[in-house]
Amino acid sequence: MPRRPEADRDSTTPRAATIRDVASRAGVSVATVSRVLTGNYPVASATRTKVLRAVRELDYVVNAHARALAGNRSKMIAVLLSNLTSPFYNRVASGVEQQAMAEDRLCMVSTTGGDPEREVKLVETLREQNVDAVVLVGGVVDSPEYRDHMARLARLLDSAGSRLVICGRPSPGENLPVTVVEYDNAGGAFAATSHLLSQGHRRILFIGGDEANTTTRDRLDGYRRAIQAYGIEADPALVIVGNQLPPFAYAELKKRLAAGPPDFTAVFAWDDHIAARTLVALRESGVSVPDQVSVIGYNDEQEAQDLYPALTTVSIPHMELGREAVRLALHRDEAAAPNQHVVLGTHIVMRDSVRPLINR
Amino acid sequence: MPRRPEADRDSTTPRAATIRDVASRAGVSVATVSRVLTGNYPVASATRTKVLRAVRELDYVVNAHARALAGNRSKMIAVLLSNLTSPFYNRVASGVEQQAMAEDRLCMVSTTGGDPEREVKLVETLREQNVDAVVLVGGVVDSPEYRDHMARLARLLDSAGSRLVICGRPSPGENLPVTVVEYDNAGGAFAATSHLLSQGHRRILFIGGDEANTTTRDRLDGYRRAIQAYGIEADPALVIVGNQLPPFAYAELKKRLAAGPPDFTAVFAWDDHIAARTLVALRESGVSVPDQVSVIGYNDEQEAQDLYPALTTVSIPHMELGREAVRLALHRDEAAAPNQHVVLGTHIVMRDSVRPLINR
Repeated sequence: MPRRPEADRDSTTPRAATIRDVASRAGVSVATVSRVLTGNYPVASATRTKVLRAVRELDYVVNAHARALAGNRSKMIAVLLSNLTSPFYNRVASGVEQQAMAEDRLCMVSTTGGDPEREVKLVETLREQNVDAVVLVGGVVDSPEYRDHMARLARLLDSAGSRLVICGRPSPGENLPVTVVEYDNAGGAFAATSHLLSQGHRRILFIGGDEANTTTRDRLDGYRRAIQAYGIEADPALVIVGNQLPPFAYAELKKRLAAGPPDFTAVFAWDDHIAARTLVALRESGVSVPDQVSVIGYNDEQEAQDLYPALTTVSIPHMELGREAVRLALHRDEAAAPNQHVVLGTHIVMRDSVRPLINR
Repeated sequence: MPRRPEADRDSTTPRAATIRDVASRAGVSVATVSRVLTGNYPVASATRTKVLRAVRELDYVVNAHARALAGNRSKMIAVLLSNLTSPFYNRVASGVEQQAMAEDRLCMVSTTGGDPEREVKLVETLREQNVDAVVLVGGVVDSPEYRDHMARLARLLDSAGSRLVICGRPSPGENLPVTVVEYDNAGGAFAATSHLLSQGHRRILFIGGDEANTTTRDRLDGYRRAIQAYGIEADPALVIVGNQLPPFAYAELKKRLAAGPPDFTAVFAWDDHIAARTLVALRESGVSVPDQVSVIGYNDEQEAQDLYPALTTVSIPHMELGREAVRLALHRDEAAAPNQHVVLGTHIVMRDSVRPLINR
């Protein structure tokens, strides 16, 4: 005969709070508590505040099965990435996981395929599941519609006591209940280009990426500003963008090199995968690196050190981005984390793929 | 004034099933339905079957907030990986995601850090959340305790109507309610080694990996069997294992090569990351690849084609592993998927890092 749980419970173990307890504590009906928690119906702001406070004070967990989780005080942080296989995304997510674990949260990763509508749907679903924070990682195609979506999601999560965290992409706007952790993307591109310029290079090819994407846009911006700062006139023929995938860059470069010797002495590849394909394209076209052409990448992927020559590149503090995202979001009500928008720095990792331009 | 949902519902939209509907359909009490779904109490097998059938037929969703999800018919598949950054894991997980989406499930990825206890805890937590299937990806340190754990988890999930799926590691045992999808790991290693032997190589160094881990153990096994099949006596000095991380292999190889010219003409690297470090170690020691020493890797990582020389390696059908895991698990009650243990094949990708041994 199955045992009754109540008979077995230690008398010192508190009974888990029910929705009735919350209603009673907040001085409202059960139906009102339900409306506040599902967020599907307009509720007076003061009423919402009362209910959410009661929910927090009583550690009320919204569904029967999550009560088992609540016994372990283990809440959840969700991370949304475009995909799992791109090292930028999975390294930042690893930082989120690390900090989530340190703060006794489960961490759950899901992917959006880069589809903004799927991202919105996932955030709405996660809000229903009462996660502590939702971290969105990585560049996007920016637009007014997208910023509106983000503003709406920020408020939606906030109304449920959760938090939207934007990680590795620009802030969606001012005065929103959102945590933003970025890295100085344009600054890293400026530094990489300036490094090449300081080595004497004047004709620097920028290759790879899609200008509609914020990550590409910011790197191109840093590259252009560095060239301008050196008083050099920009040559549009030295910019090859249009598609983030490595095969695009490889094909474009092979085409260019088939037409004649390189009309540039350095390449700034949008990321290390593009840089890897660039090294192959140059090698196949009989151009030696770094003797004839220098190459610099971005991201400091694992493979950067395995390439030949080992790749000079820009390092992004991936793990720190992820960790900081969680730290700021979870402690946002504390004096220790008043600033909810931070920008982390990048640095150049010097390896073997860049050398000074020696005038012949 | 908040609107009442019933008043707004289109009369053709079915009301979501309640636990009372399920009880009525199955001819049992509400309490019995609850016991079956939480799986905390022993319930007669026939009763459990009746209740689970009613749950499926009525599309009953267990918690109040998941009813919002149920409107979208979206259930969940959880994937557990050791970490997010290793391409083997994240590629298989991508396959799981792809099929999960095709079957209208949410897919949620979490990591275990390779810690078997954390893996067990996570599975127990996921069971409470009523996921459709839990997919465990990747090699483990095998032991009787581990197999007991897996057997217990398989039964735990099964009692909740869920399913344990083992992906990319050997079956934990016979007669368990578990789905197993493997790839022919040892067979791929046998093929890689046989390829080197067929090219005339007789002294083949195996480097990298940790013998306690099933992935290494199986690859070493395939390597040894191929050598034995050629009638060659195994030389233990040609096996360097102990640690899965690339720096270990790099250091060991540098040490070996510092002592004198290579006493081997080919290297079978445990995986492509080890192979990448092997290429660097050989190059730094003045040994040219493939002229003096051939190198073969395993996994066909993205970087294999970016290395110099481009790496010959063993390709694993990562995406198919993940997809098959989901397909088999979700359709296990159907005639179409009677076989719950499949082994997918590998194949060798020929690139530029292996050449025949020409006798001088």
